[in-house]
Amino acid sequence: MLAHRLIERKRDGGRIEPGEWRALALAYAKGHVPDYQMAALLMACFLRGLDRAETAALTEAMLLSGDRLELEHLGRPRVDKHSTGGVGDKVSLVLAPMVAALGVAVPMMSGRSLGHTGGTLDKLESIPGFRTDLTLAQAVRQIEELGCVMIGQTPEIAPADKKMYALRDATATVESIPLIASSIMSKKLAEDLTGLVLDMKRGSGALIPDVDRVLELAEVMIKLGADHGCPCVALVTAMDRPLGRACGNALEVEEAIAALKGEGPPELMAVTYALGAEMLVLAGVAENTDQARRELEKTIGTGRAAEHFQKIIEAQGGNPSVVDDPSILPQAAECEIFAAPRRGFVARIEPRHLGRGIIEMGGGRTRVEDIADPSVGFVVTARPGDWVEAGEAMATIFARDRAGIGSGRQALRAAFVIADEAEPPLPMVSHRVTIDGVETVSS
Amino acid sequence: MLAHRLIERKRDGGRIEPGEWRALALAYAKGHVPDYQMAALLMACFLRGLDRAETAALTEAMLLSGDRLELEHLGRPRVDKHSTGGVGDKVSLVLAPMVAALGVAVPMMSGRSLGHTGGTLDKLESIPGFRTDLTLAQAVRQIEELGCVMIGQTPEIAPADKKMYALRDATATVESIPLIASSIMSKKLAEDLTGLVLDMKRGSGALIPDVDRVLELAEVMIKLGADHGCPCVALVTAMDRPLGRACGNALEVEEAIAALKGEGPPELMAVTYALGAEMLVLAGVAENTDQARRELEKTIGTGRAAEHFQKIIEAQGGNPSVVDDPSILPQAAECEIFAAPRRGFVARIEPRHLGRGIIEMGGGRTRVEDIADPSVGFVVTARPGDWVEAGEAMATIFARDRAGIGSGRQALRAAFVIADEAEPPLPMVSHRVTIDGVETVSS
Repeated sequence: MLAHRLIERKRDGGRIEPGEWRALALAYAKGHVPDYQMAALLMACFLRGLDRAETAALTEAMLLSGDRLELEHLGRPRVDKHSTGGVGDKVSLVLAPMVAALGVAVPMMSGRSLGHTGGTLDKLESIPGFRTDLTLAQAVRQIEELGCVMIGQTPEIAPADKKMYALRDATATVESIPLIASSIMSKKLAEDLTGLVLDMKRGSGALIPDVDRVLELAEVMIKLGADHGCPCVALVTAMDRPLGRACGNALEVEEAIAALKGEGPPELMAVTYALGAEMLVLAGVAENTDQARRELEKTIGTGRAAEHFQKIIEAQGGNPSVVDDPSILPQAAECEIFAAPRRGFVARIEPRHLGRGIIEMGGGRTRVEDIADPSVGFVVTARPGDWVEAGEAMATIFARDRAGIGSGRQALRAAFVIADEAEPPLPMVSHRVTIDGVETVSS
Repeated sequence: MLAHRLIERKRDGGRIEPGEWRALALAYAKGHVPDYQMAALLMACFLRGLDRAETAALTEAMLLSGDRLELEHLGRPRVDKHSTGGVGDKVSLVLAPMVAALGVAVPMMSGRSLGHTGGTLDKLESIPGFRTDLTLAQAVRQIEELGCVMIGQTPEIAPADKKMYALRDATATVESIPLIASSIMSKKLAEDLTGLVLDMKRGSGALIPDVDRVLELAEVMIKLGADHGCPCVALVTAMDRPLGRACGNALEVEEAIAALKGEGPPELMAVTYALGAEMLVLAGVAENTDQARRELEKTIGTGRAAEHFQKIIEAQGGNPSVVDDPSILPQAAECEIFAAPRRGFVARIEPRHLGRGIIEMGGGRTRVEDIADPSVGFVVTARPGDWVEAGEAMATIFARDRAGIGSGRQALRAAFVIADEAEPPLPMVSHRVTIDGVETVSS
């Protein structure tokens, strides 16, 4: 009866109280509230909205529906980064080892690919042997040892959110700011963090393309963090094109390893350093972002970051030789160069077409249960604003078979827009948002 | 994927096309669309609304999700009555035999009690042996023989509506005019009618209390009927108090039998005659409602209506002696007089409290699966506007045990409002609505 009453009230534009959210989240996690009632409530929330207090209460209710990490005994700062998702976004793989190498604990719980966007777990699992399904106790032990763990949302963490997340995906109730904010923050707050950096993607390839709504979401999440004693900083970054060159799980791991060795594409490094610097300042191990950036660069120059990644891989059952020899990653059977169909400026490289192309080629999921082939994808060498001649190589397609190459070609044809004039792409980092407000960044 | 796309579109205020409604209703009836997706869509429909064309398309889609009666071969008019539901509403039990006795086919498919309102099926099933679960073939045969059958919605009739109706009840998406209208009309149009009379309840005990919304619903249903070649007339009738004296399944059958013998309470007869007269005029067997009313009165005076009810009971497996000896109906173990707690005018008799009281006493359902005890209920002898002295009998409580009497007493205490001044109750019939518009009725 509780669920029915709450649906009715939200439907009519009323408020749901904290105690009611808690009772509902617990009952739903235990299976006492059926999915169809939760689906009706989610749609009512989507259309009627949640105010700030309700969003906080929902976040808290989902957090309290499960366990959380206990990391205070570490005696050092604990900072994570969360990205709202994009194509080619392998930042976590580069960032976590760098920051952990500098003495900050990074208890990173990531997600899987869904829709056109990639997922850190899928990328990591393309490393032979790598396991992301650690228990909470194993995760804590690894953080104690290495300062970093990279796992998925365990069944104990925010189980109400886990069920609601899958349900939202099936019921077209994903793109709601309070629902997105509470879902992300309920998981991140379960990591027992002392600080959180948010990578808020904007542009055509982002979950929420419009920058004003992105800023609104950032503001809601930062306030949720503040309410729970977890200071947050958000950077708004470009997802009007893929981030870096590689798109596809194993290809992205390879690029991340290259980045850790100082050979990352400049756009990837710009975003990685910007986010990493905020993490170090939040952690209190750097006084300002300039100093933080120099520290981060040193972890690359000295090889400490790559070494740290190797240790994490080993600890999680993966083959650590991958760092020295990325060719042990799954390799695609077929590859083909994609050439510019005409001369002109590369006006746009549409991430959604690349993301969907990877799914077409068997490298992503349309449902959570799907198994993705880690070897397929693209390496996109052309960049927005480049001048290309007809027939010039712009990308390479990696596929399982000739049919996959065909799908990849089609996706690239849709993704690349070549025109007589180039529009300027979005700045890699455009805004910085803290509890005090929004500043634009000149990058 | 279809469901997801349609949810998304309706969520954003878009339209769903007739072919899409048809595909969705079929897939849902077959179990290919999960309840949680339909629940999200229903909430989006509730909040965004459906325009006239969409409502018509949804009605058609639900109708086409199943079979329909084929009755054209009867060669005579086929008219039914539908009520939006109330407390003490036993009109169908009186009306169907009267109208059928005058040569009009009445293929009556009714519902069960749900919420505080009663259901014709439950009332009929309180007659020992009476079966409402006939097959469509059996129903057609009985209509051929007796001109009337009184059954439930068979599994073949509008299965998509059947599932959606149960889902709406669980997801707080009931009180939506397009959803109510399409649900009712998809079932009624499956009866292959040549005319339909709608009893639209208004007042505090009605599903939709507000008369303006009731008129809006009537208009939508009448247009749906017209679009499908089924002329409809609606009468708006009072549900600010129970209809007649008896409330509770067996008690209402007893009152219906009394009514068929000329001993019905005046308010019940006023509504019954008014609806019946419209049915006869729609059927073309009377020229106007005055003439129709005289014909109906004759079926009572001559005993033909009571006799016809007896035949229907016998044909559907019930004990026909009930018409001569209503004491064979299930009898409550306990009864108690309810007396006026103070002197004054009976200002209100709130139907919702009576309906909920019957549920409390075990005579109704809170879920579709519940089994109702037919013997319990109330006989309310006081009428709005009556002057009562303290201690004067106002009603009788019929219950299974002393605890039930206690619940009944509590319900009556809540239902009766005695005051120093009497407000005039609603007129029994206040409006008549046809495809040409609304007229107020002076009754």
